[in-house]
Amino acid sequence: MSDFPAVVELNVGGVQYASGLDTLRSEDGSWLQEVFGGSADDMPKDSQGRFFIDRDGVLFRYVLEYLREPAKFKVTAEFQDRVRLRREAEFFRLSGLVEALTKEPGCITIGYRGSFQFGRDGLADVKFRKITRLLVHGRVAICREVFGDTLNESRDPDHGGPDRYTARFFLKHVFIEQAFDMLQDNGFRCVGSCGSGTAGSITENLKPGVDSEENRWNHYNEFVFIRD
Amino acid sequence: MSDFPAVVELNVGGVQYASGLDTLRSEDGSWLQEVFGGSADDMPKDSQGRFFIDRDGVLFRYVLEYLREPAKFKVTAEFQDRVRLRREAEFFRLSGLVEALTKEPGCITIGYRGSFQFGRDGLADVKFRKITRLLVHGRVAICREVFGDTLNESRDPDHGGPDRYTARFFLKHVFIEQAFDMLQDNGFRCVGSCGSGTAGSITENLKPGVDSEENRWNHYNEFVFIRD
Amino acid sequence: MSDFPAVVELNVGGVQYASGLDTLRSEDGSWLQEVFGGSADDMPKDSQGRFFIDRDGVLFRYVLEYLREPAKFKVTAEFQDRVRLRREAEFFRLSGLVEALTKEPGCITIGYRGSFQFGRDGLADVKFRKITRLLVHGRVAICREVFGDTLNESRDPDHGGPDRYTARFFLKHVFIEQAFDMLQDNGFRCVGSCGSGTAGSITENLKPGVDSEENRWNHYNEFVFIRD
Amino acid sequence: MSDFPAVVELNVGGVQYASGLDTLRSEDGSWLQEVFGGSADDMPKDSQGRFFIDRDGVLFRYVLEYLREPAKFKVTAEFQDRVRLRREAEFFRLSGLVEALTKEPGCITIGYRGSFQFGRDGLADVKFRKITRLLVHGRVAICREVFGDTLNESRDPDHGGPDRYTARFFLKHVFIEQAFDMLQDNGFRCVGSCGSGTAGSITENLKPGVDSEENRWNHYNEFVFIRD
Amino acid sequence: MSDFPAVVELNVGGVQYASGLDTLRSEDGSWLQEVFGGSADDMPKDSQGRFFIDRDGVLFRYVLEYLREPAKFKVTAEFQDRVRLRREAEFFRLSGLVEALTKEPGCITIGYRGSFQFGRDGLADVKFRKITRLLVHGRVAICREVFGDTLNESRDPDHGGPDRYTARFFLKHVFIEQAFDMLQDNGFRCVGSCGSGTAGSITENLKPGVDSEENRWNHYNEFVFIRD
Repeated sequence: MSDFPAVVELNVGGVQYASGLDTLRSEDGSWLQEVFGGSADDMPKDSQGRFFIDRDGVLFRYVLEYLREPAKFKVTAEFQDRVRLRREAEFFRLSGLVEALTKEPGCITIGYRGSFQFGRDGLADVKFRKITRLLVHGRVAICREVFGDTLNESRDPDHGGPDRYTARFFLKHVFIEQAFDMLQDNGFRCVGSCGSGTAGSITENLKPGVDSEENRWNHYNEFVFIRD
Repeated sequence: MSDFPAVVELNVGGVQYASGLDTLRSEDGSWLQEVFGGSADDMPKDSQGRFFIDRDGVLFRYVLEYLREPAKFKVTAEFQDRVRLRREAEFFRLSGLVEALTKEPGCITIGYRGSFQFGRDGLADVKFRKITRLLVHGRVAICREVFGDTLNESRDPDHGGPDRYTARFFLKHVFIEQAFDMLQDNGFRCVGSCGSGTAGSITENLKPGVDSEENRWNHYNEFVFIRD
Repeated sequence: MSDFPAVVELNVGGVQYASGLDTLRSEDGSWLQEVFGGSADDMPKDSQGRFFIDRDGVLFRYVLEYLREPAKFKVTAEFQDRVRLRREAEFFRLSGLVEALTKEPGCITIGYRGSFQFGRDGLADVKFRKITRLLVHGRVAICREVFGDTLNESRDPDHGGPDRYTARFFLKHVFIEQAFDMLQDNGFRCVGSCGSGTAGSITENLKPGVDSEENRWNHYNEFVFIRD
Repeated sequence: MSDFPAVVELNVGGVQYASGLDTLRSEDGSWLQEVFGGSADDMPKDSQGRFFIDRDGVLFRYVLEYLREPAKFKVTAEFQDRVRLRREAEFFRLSGLVEALTKEPGCITIGYRGSFQFGRDGLADVKFRKITRLLVHGRVAICREVFGDTLNESRDPDHGGPDRYTARFFLKHVFIEQAFDMLQDNGFRCVGSCGSGTAGSITENLKPGVDSEENRWNHYNEFVFIRD
Repeated sequence: MSDFPAVVELNVGGVQYASGLDTLRSEDGSWLQEVFGGSADDMPKDSQGRFFIDRDGVLFRYVLEYLREPAKFKVTAEFQDRVRLRREAEFFRLSGLVEALTKEPGCITIGYRGSFQFGRDGLADVKFRKITRLLVHGRVAICREVFGDTLNESRDPDHGGPDRYTARFFLKHVFIEQAFDMLQDNGFRCVGSCGSGTAGSITENLKPGVDSEENRWNHYNEFVFIRD
């Protein structure tokens, strides 16, 4: 039976922490449950009598955060220690934490060819954004992970391994903000963006039914998202 | 009756804090008021006699900041622990703090078609920016939250649920800096921007009253804002 | 008469500080001068005998920085706790610090229509940047604060309140780097930038004295600056 | 024989650390192995009896991180103390750590000329991205380090020293996301991006087999990556 | 003669440090050499007997870093406390540290007009980047500091004071990555970038020897660099 105090004072790599014993022992199969379910005498202590853990002192904060409320644990796209923290999670055998952090680094670019809807009848104010198609480019596995069911792979003839790169995916909808939200939700952040218009005067050979003003405003905007 | 000292020393997840007892007990219905309104004997202590709270040690700083001056509490768009801090606020039952942090993550893009005003009479210097319309795109609920009364929804035929995405909102004014200020004030930050000109020479069939120089300078600039 | 030690040890919200007594008492009318000019017995202490101040522990660092050398205090555009620190400054009644931090958040966009100077005589290498005009857009009060005497308001017909937004200001010079320097010096940072060229071939009806090559390279570059 | 305790408490430039003795002595030939393989009496101590090391207190965290699991050590592109940490690694004679940090600062720009594939048969939806070539520019040694076998140097006539700069490299594939991934994996981050379309109407003299719509959408997008 | 211990424990504005006495006294003429070359009795102490220095506790870390290895001291462009640290360096009379930090804040924009080299003989793959000229804009003194001998001032007719701004400098080479490296090496970071193509069809009056394809791809890319 465990003989640790209810409030456990820890020295993790030199940083002091305190935690309820129940919190420390809460995850089945974890290193912490094993150690703090044993005898306090078997555990190394520092000179102040605090229990010593030979791991990174700063990141242990997030280990405790996870243990207190596992279901709520989430890191943002800005969190810069994902890889490091996963290593700690692996050492402590906290499978839920490992899973929450197991996102491969990588890059997705998303672009759209767009213009504006203009009124036929001269209603100058009916001019909203019109996106023809949202193009998705990147490694296949990552594109699938982020966009799931909203991804259209029908134009990609090389139905191969997930490690291939493709420039032939597109989305089933045309709301780029929805795509941005899904990227953000999966831990990606925008690191670059560029736009360009189109060349040439094609008014002379415009197809019937194509508005010349809409044609003039054609542009391609492209956004680069990265996950560390 | 409470028997805590006037200066309360705390060990919050290993981090030391000190706070006036009145500050800790200031919010009605909160966990802290309940606990520090009780008996000091009932509260767990660390080996130095500090009162122990099994929560994140770093974020407790903002809990105290809120308690000292609730009405002034505000986080900027750059603050990266909003989600985490909200979790702490929920645990401590600090409704004002929860509310200040309850902003959904998401994305809004705002774009404008613009050009410059040129003088008819050859006054070369009368050339200021001329924006036809500020277009707003994103999830309906978030667009409404940010732009409120300045949002024009009249061109969006799908008056549906707030979880839809739309590309048909625009603003009732044409000052993009005002829109930027409202986005910033609501915790959004700019993560991307792109511009493009228009194509083609349309001087031959220019409508009467449209300045050809103004027409040449037409451009579409688009800005992506994100809230974590 | 004050009976504090020459080296004052402080517990500010749980963070330890040490300061010379003279430093703490240096600003007339401040909370710190008042408190540390009184009796040490009247001041709350923590369990180690350190003098307790119920304010944010992290930001007190900047309060001390200000007190040691008030004239040199300055925060950069990247400093993210301006609003928070101003609150501390107000509590401590440090007017110089309040003033140094009292900058309203907001946004300014600055753009230019530019091209390049080409040689008439075929000197291919005489091709430097040529900016026609630097356009300034944003809330009137902020534009005036940043650009002061270098701002030209002559084309803005609505000489109204400083809370209006305008797109009709321009600068009296054409050095965009000078404008950037003034923005930076006032705590703004660049968060977006976009460029676009012009449309159409106008070589057929070029006005006399306008170089066609210069005309082809016309572009509009726009930069968004924000202060938190 | 070493007489250090199993849990070694350290004062590194004022910051407290604790480490298992085995961890400290794990790398052959290192300063730490030498010192902690000797006598505890020979080592300077602070007033609390902690062993004193006259090096940076903050960065020692990463030294311990490396020693605990050398093979897993990795810093991200966002890590801002690479140069400083390498200095510590050199002092401690940790060759694996030195190697992991020995990346020269520098810059690579990567650009592509691209358009979209349009259907001959009027299938309006067959329009994916089409990149002709990925151009790589920068110092030769760094380009080689990042892109290795995927770099094509055949168009660079100056097969000179690695310190030259070149604008004539390109990649053997056309997946810009793969290039981004390699840049990210080598510690580069994107700091700038710009796009531009092309000029002029060339429909009149279009070569046979070149789609005019594809031609109109030609653009050049360029991305700047930097390693600190 | 000095009677300080070999391991000096310090309380710098509340933050604990430890340093070898030799390190503290290593720079001739410095405040630290003077103070720690005197008598330990003359120095103020905190309640734990640590020597007290009434300066910023956080930045003292870099003072020690400098003292341990002065020749290796360097701050990156991302370091945000340059101005603050210089103030500390001045107080401590560490001339080498002052010098390493004495870089004026400011802004430089660098732009290029570029296109691609196309093959006369129809070799479609011979298409590398072709930059005509690298233009440098900003305050004269800063441009000279960064680019030194690589700066060409011959087109700037106003050979005046270094505080002027100029848009007439260019570089003696055409490798923009080399310019980026020099900016980075001097503590600048990229905060904005924009691109634009050119207007108009000029195929009809193209000068002999100018490739029309190269002409179509003309663009101007501009990058804004800032030093805090």
